[in-house]
Amino acid sequence: MKRLFLMAVLMLVCTVGFAQTKQLPKPDLQRKTLTVMEAFKQRRSVREYSARMLSDQDLGDLLWAAQGVNREDGRLTSPTAMNRQEIRLYVFTAKEVSLYDPKTHSLTQVAKGDHRGIVAANQPFSKEAPVSLLMVADMDKFGSKGEHAQAMVAVDTGIVTENINLFCSAAGLATVTRGTMDSKAISALLGLTENQIPLINNPVGYLK
Amino acid sequence: MKRLFLMAVLMLVCTVGFAQTKQLPKPDLQRKTLTVMEAFKQRRSVREYSARMLSDQDLGDLLWAAQGVNREDGRLTSPTAMNRQEIRLYVFTAKEVSLYDPKTHSLTQVAKGDHRGIVAANQPFSKEAPVSLLMVADMDKFGSKGEHAQAMVAVDTGIVTENINLFCSAAGLATVTRGTMDSKAISALLGLTENQIPLINNPVGYLK
Repeated sequence: MKRLFLMAVLMLVCTVGFAQTKQLPKPDLQRKTLTVMEAFKQRRSVREYSARMLSDQDLGDLLWAAQGVNREDGRLTSPTAMNRQEIRLYVFTAKEVSLYDPKTHSLTQVAKGDHRGIVAANQPFSKEAPVSLLMVADMDKFGSKGEHAQAMVAVDTGIVTENINLFCSAAGLATVTRGTMDSKAISALLGLTENQIPLINNPVGYLK
Repeated sequence: MKRLFLMAVLMLVCTVGFAQTKQLPKPDLQRKTLTVMEAFKQRRSVREYSARMLSDQDLGDLLWAAQGVNREDGRLTSPTAMNRQEIRLYVFTAKEVSLYDPKTHSLTQVAKGDHRGIVAANQPFSKEAPVSLLMVADMDKFGSKGEHAQAMVAVDTGIVTENINLFCSAAGLATVTRGTMDSKAISALLGLTENQIPLINNPVGYLK
């Protein structure tokens, strides 16, 4: 009995240990970015990046802009059809892959190691960026399938990627919206079901 | 022969006459909008609108933000997959329906009269807005079909609607991204083929 209890404690410690969660700095709403009109003027697709890792503040602000909570009722910067919040946002770096949780503004590690290559696929420029953001549409969370539902989750994905594009444009970061990736390898790594579809990714880095 | 020439001239005049084109004011890149971070903080879906028509400057700036030309090479504020620029942007008002041409930053009338009701469909709040923006994905211009192509044009549509949302958030306008509409009636009115798919619309007005 005592041994069973100790094993249970050990398992709990291991589980918590594996699910490493990192709190991100509070979004800096006063940060000096361009105005929206200036950001539209500057918006362009950039495929060259400094290898320097983003600061925690820049990464946190970027993720919050993409789909952070911007109101007390838990709604997001990026609208989703019927507020279903079905887009998962993964962060690939040289060290690990993490999942962004808008509610707690934190990142939870889901895989160790550098897996930016399966996001880059046949476009090596993409893995030069220190961060790759991956958007996965969760059809189970969306709650319906069929052609219309698939179009709507893709629209919601487009909304998130454009938030990323505009934040980067405004904050002096480089990025591009990409549909290319090795979806099979990504699904295997992240343990996705056939209803969780990798749709779009954005490599992000400082301007070279 | 002379009569034929006169008829040709007459037809030309009639054609030009019917295709009423309105030049929009040059985008005001210095207009005082919020910063991008502030616009993300303020972004929300609004379903109540003042009935007052948008000024030409506000409508022009809104359309430019949505998918205007922002560079000398003709590229747009909103990226599209492989720069195919396959999203058509229609403007429904109390007077007419027009198509936005990014290249000339102008509107060309495609139907007379108030057709906002077929965009609103079963959600009457939508037709209270003085302007409804409709996004139509042109699969022929995109150049491929199939499941992946359909997802990509929907992503591109999401990008345009989010530009609209963020411009409105930054400029004190009210809007919401909607997937609901009477697609059959819209296709009939605009003479769309089965490869030109109405996907998303945004009613836009001043805050009530």
